[in-house]
This record gives sequence, structure tokens and C-alpha cells, in this order.
Amino acid sequence: MTAETTGLAPAFEAAEYATRLARTRERMAARDIDLLVVADPANINYLSGYDAWSFYTPQVLVVPRDEGLLFYTRAMDRAGAILTTDMEEDRIRGFPESYVQQRERHPLDWVAADILEHGLGTGTVAVEMDAYYFSPRAYLALRDGLPAARLVDAEQLVNWVRAVKSPAELDVMRQAARIMEQVMAVGIDAVRPGVRQCDAVAAIYDAQMRGLPDAGGEYTSFVPMLPSGPGTATPHLTWSDRPFQTDEATILELGACYRRYHCPMARTVYLGDPPRRLTDTVAVVEEGLEVALAAVAPGATCESVEAAWRSVISRHGLSKASRIGYSVGLNYPPDWGEHTMSLRPGDQSVLEPNMTFHMILGMWMDGWGFELSETFVVTPSGAECLCTTPRDLVVKR
Amino acid sequence: MTAETTGLAPAFEAAEYATRLARTRERMAARDIDLLVVADPANINYLSGYDAWSFYTPQVLVVPRDEGLLFYTRAMDRAGAILTTDMEEDRIRGFPESYVQQRERHPLDWVAADILEHGLGTGTVAVEMDAYYFSPRAYLALRDGLPAARLVDAEQLVNWVRAVKSPAELDVMRQAARIMEQVMAVGIDAVRPGVRQCDAVAAIYDAQMRGLPDAGGEYTSFVPMLPSGPGTATPHLTWSDRPFQTDEATILELGACYRRYHCPMARTVYLGDPPRRLTDTVAVVEEGLEVALAAVAPGATCESVEAAWRSVISRHGLSKASRIGYSVGLNYPPDWGEHTMSLRPGDQSVLEPNMTFHMILGMWMDGWGFELSETFVVTPSGAECLCTTPRDLVVKR
Repeated sequence: MTAETTGLAPAFEAAEYATRLARTRERMAARDIDLLVVADPANINYLSGYDAWSFYTPQVLVVPRDEGLLFYTRAMDRAGAILTTDMEEDRIRGFPESYVQQRERHPLDWVAADILEHGLGTGTVAVEMDAYYFSPRAYLALRDGLPAARLVDAEQLVNWVRAVKSPAELDVMRQAARIMEQVMAVGIDAVRPGVRQCDAVAAIYDAQMRGLPDAGGEYTSFVPMLPSGPGTATPHLTWSDRPFQTDEATILELGACYRRYHCPMARTVYLGDPPRRLTDTVAVVEEGLEVALAAVAPGATCESVEAAWRSVISRHGLSKASRIGYSVGLNYPPDWGEHTMSLRPGDQSVLEPNMTFHMILGMWMDGWGFELSETFVVTPSGAECLCTTPRDLVVKR
Repeated sequence: MTAETTGLAPAFEAAEYATRLARTRERMAARDIDLLVVADPANINYLSGYDAWSFYTPQVLVVPRDEGLLFYTRAMDRAGAILTTDMEEDRIRGFPESYVQQRERHPLDWVAADILEHGLGTGTVAVEMDAYYFSPRAYLALRDGLPAARLVDAEQLVNWVRAVKSPAELDVMRQAARIMEQVMAVGIDAVRPGVRQCDAVAAIYDAQMRGLPDAGGEYTSFVPMLPSGPGTATPHLTWSDRPFQTDEATILELGACYRRYHCPMARTVYLGDPPRRLTDTVAVVEEGLEVALAAVAPGATCESVEAAWRSVISRHGLSKASRIGYSVGLNYPPDWGEHTMSLRPGDQSVLEPNMTFHMILGMWMDGWGFELSETFVVTPSGAECLCTTPRDLVVKR
């Protein structure tokens, strides 16, 4: 039985991972990095294909300049990495159970010692100083365990390699977009007076997981965001078991995921006759979205796209302090953003073909709010939105 | 409209939070800690009631010895904290958008400066050095921004306060247990030859979210674990869109969550006639579970419970390197364990009434595996399992 027939194979062909690793090493060489220690689960997956919920105990992928990868995980998770990746078995290193959640010792003590045993850990060692799931204690254990190394911040080195998607990655994101259209249709349908928020979320999860006949869905890096009524004045509230009420708005900020690649989308539903302040804002945001998308082109900067949006809303007397989008793709909870580019003032990153963004226009006002978003890919001729769901405020009278 | 009628109120009464805070401050005083900086979202929720998916940008709850809490979050999330907690509005501090995901500055730079402006940040400042969502960069920014402070590791200070549950917390966990029984019944039913794994997961999520008529479900800290066939040889694999096959086992390691409190459970399904090696192992594990549960009592140690289990399985020639359980309750992804007590050799923590554990017996063998678990509360007379689901291997011929 091969990995392909058991559903346990990496998401992409070996050549795809080889290209990613070569690009990573180019950036390492440009910065004179001898060893890169990758802790972000999305970066680990990107370079190795490893996909499991094992990042709740420490794990790092170690990238030497000119020899094979070393992957460090808890001993019990070794078998999963062997089963599901093409990494060499003796390069998949399991720290013993006696290092799990102990006060006296840390898994990174063991990792550092093993790195030394492999003749590595001298020179410039780059670590992801702001990655999820890499704690200060992990950092200090690695620093103390590699006394001959000069530790530097890798910053978003691998994240930047992820920014431009390959054709295979775009195929996967288009599958996620097909799922996303279904998920949003189900979500919008479920928001009705008297229906509990949790029951709408049940229907949303059901659609996320069933996915397509030939592409089953996966968990998304954000859980469904479902602020309703007064909760629409703020982002990032999830849901309760309160029923939806008439004369209230509900924001659906949802995602779909296939092979760990995301397509997110936000829409807003109003039960009853929407107030004028809301419909006025919707009109401005829809215009702002179109103008901002029209500003997307290879060679344009992130801040120029935001400026196009801002010119529209400021003409109508509105303002928005927060960024209007970010690079999106492969990820794990708690964020589907890639932590590289943001569509905001000061971000002079230059757009290139096959970059992918989530443009999210969240207007959080005094006691009410509205959201609208699109996931798009930068093409030679501009922005191509991955989904076709209508953008209008959904009004149910 | 009050928070109660909008579903936005904290999960517990104010007196419950006051007790938690008093117990936390007792531990702070015992360790001469002047200021505690809490980053773990579960600890933040525990002390303040704040519940939102905003921990993907940095946030900390600052606990002074003898004045009110200070909560730091992204500016856009202030409104949500004001709306859903009883913290004083001017003590909910929003760092500006210009600090989000930047190379030159970090949100904890701003937090440190604001702590100083409040006349705090001298003396002994304890930080959670191994918490999720508190990065090395965050730690270094706080250290550099509080030059007059002596930073120490808080270790699991608040987690230990969480270890003994109040009657109100146990009520919530019992609700989660009722949901869990339904979720497992749905999951077991869905595992059939030809059904795609992702479709079984859709049904599981649906049951998790619908919950009970008077207690809607919430997202769990682990996503469903669903290793199948050769994947059962390892924990922490999630699912694919491959259909279940006859003559294969599937492990269902699932959870249910209500008001962020978890009740997890693992069961195993076999499609076809289970091989002798599996049924033999099941019998040993069931006996080991009963003996281990019988060893639970106030005054017993964590390691003595594990020793009881080990005496059974070693008599049958089996061994297990990893811990057989851990303290469980309130949490956020990626872990529902509390990172305090583990049922394993060397852990001499003493069991007290109203502690809650997930005892999980995962046997990962060479190419196959089996799991069985129970969530239990320590009572004056022993272990009380929260669920009533039968423990046997589920065989579908």
C-alpha cells in the first residue's frame, strides 16, 4: 500500500518541494545564514509536506545550507512524519517523552544537543523569533544549547518564499474557492430569525468539511467569525447559542481549506429593513472594493492599492485605521495570513503575478458594523477574484 | 440591551472571577511577584472572561498585586473586550494598527511603555515563558521595555489555579460531556465502508456545534483526530477525503466544548473482523483503564495512577512510553491540556477533589493502533467519568 492510496501522501510532487527548498536556500545564502530553524507549522509543511496536529508540543525543521533536512518532533509523532513525508527516516528525530511539559528540561535542549551531534549549529543560525508555537523558553534553550552559534532573527524568510504561488498551489486554492462559494451560500441561508447561531455554524462546518466530490474540506486557520447584532461593532467574536434576531446584522467571515490552502470570504446579512447608515456604508465599501481591485497590477505596491480604497471612502467621509488585506494561502490556526505583505500605508512591497491576497474591508462602527471581502490572485492583467459570490448586503425581510 | 440578552456576557458570575483573581494573587505573593503578565488565551479568559479569536495578534493581561487588571489587545479588538467583559473600559488598552506585523516595532514595545505609564513594571515581573502565542520577540520587547524590572518565568502559575474546578466549572464540563456523548455516537455511526473521512468529520462538527437544546457547542482546542488504517500507528493525523475501508481500524479522538470547557473522548472502530492482536490489546487496555481509574483518589499521586495502569499492561507484555493523561478543562487551540499535571512516572502531584483529567490510552504499534479514553473528575470517593459511552472496540462487520 502506497501513501497515495492511503490518503497520507504529501499534497504536492517532490519537484515542488525541491523548488521551495532551493528558493529558501537562495535566501539563506544571500543573508549568510548557515542553518535555518523553522518553527512555524505552515513553513514546516511548505518545505516538507508534513501535516499533522502535532505542533502543540514543540517541533522544528532544521534546514542546513547543503545537506538534508532534519525534522524534530515528539517521539510519538515520528511515525506520522515517516508515513506522510519523503524525509529520510533517520533525519526525523523524536525527542523523548521525558522532555514533554517539564520544568527542568525543554524539548529544545534535546534538539540543540542533537543538532550538535550532526556537526551543525555553528556559524549563523537563524530562528523565527515571531512565529507561533516557538516560545521564549524554546528560544533560550536553543541559544544556550548552541554556544558556538550566532543566533539571528530569520524574520519571515520562508513566509516570503511562500508569497508567490506555483501553478499547483493556485489549483489547490481554486478548489478551496469552489468550497468557499458553497460554504457562504450555506451560511447565508442559515442566518434566519430564531435560528441559533451555533446551528448556523454547524451547517457552515458541515459544508467546509464535505467540500467537493473530488476535494474534501479541511479545518480552517480561523474558526467561523459570526458577530451578530451589537457584536458586529468588533471583529473576532465567534458565536453563541443565541438565536438570530430581526433588525440585526450578522457578519459571516468564513474560510474554506483544501490541502491546508485557504480561500477566505466575508459577507453580511441583515434580517429586516437595513438602516440607512448601513446601506450607505455598503455602497461606499462596494465602490471602494472595486477601485482597490482595479489598482492591483504587477508592479503596483501594497500601499498604492490601499490608497485607492482610501481615496474612495474619504471622499464619502469614512475612514478605516486598519489594513485592508494581507497575503494569504497555506496555513494552520490561528491565522491564514502569511505575515509578509499587508495592504496598508507604508507597505511598499511590489505585487508580482501569482501572489494571493485576502482583501477584507471591515467597518466597525459605534454599535454596528459591516464586512465585505474577496480573495484574489495577482495576474499579469490585474486582480482575479477566486470566488463569484455576489457582494451585496444580503437582506432578508 | 444587556450583555446577558445578547449572548455576549462572560461565562460565569463576577464572584467566580474575583475568587480566581484572589487565588492568583495569593500565588503571586507567595513568590514575591509584583506584576504577572499573562499571555495564554485560556489564562486570560480564566481571569477576565474574555473570549475571542483575537490571540493571533499579541495580547496580554497584566495582573498587578493590588490594583485592577490591565488588558492589552489590538486596537480593533478593544470594542469586543469592552462589550463582553466587566473590565474597566480605560484599563482595556489597544495597541495601534501600526504595530501589527511590522519589522521595526512590536506590540510589546507599546505594551511595555504603557505599563510604565501606569506606574508599573518595576520589581519582579513574571511572564509565561512557555505559553502559546507569546513569542521570543514579544519577550525581548517586554524585557527591553521594562529596564527596571526583574523578569522571571511565571511557569504555569495561573494554570495551577485552574487545576481545581469550581462547582460552576464542573456544571459546564458536564454539559460538554452530554455533547461529547452525542458527538461520539454520530462519529461512530459515520465510519462506514465507502464513506469519505471528510464526510464523517462533517457530521462530527455538526454535532459538536449544535450541542444541546440549552447549550450550544463551540470549537474544540483540538480538531477531530481521525487516523484510519495505517494512520492508526501514530497520533495527531487529522483526516483526508479517502473513504473508509473494510478490514481497517479508525481511531476517533474527539472533543466537545461548552463555554471553552472541554470534555474529550477517544474510541476505536473496526470495519470487518478485527485481528487477534487488536482484540487482545483492547482487552488489556480496558482492564488497565479500570485499574487506573480505581487508583484515583484524593491524596493519590499522578504517578501512582500511571503505575496502576502499567502494572496491568506489563503483566500482559505491553508497554507504553508516553503519559496516560493530563489535567483538562478550559482552553483554546492547539491544546485542551492544561500543562500542569501528567499521569506519568515522576509526576508527584497530589490529586484533589474537583480536579479533572483526560485519561487517554493510546497504543501506537507497528502499522496499527488503538485508543480509548475517559474524562474524569476526582471526587472524595474516587474517579467519576463524565461520559457513559461504552468502552468496547466498535466492530462493524
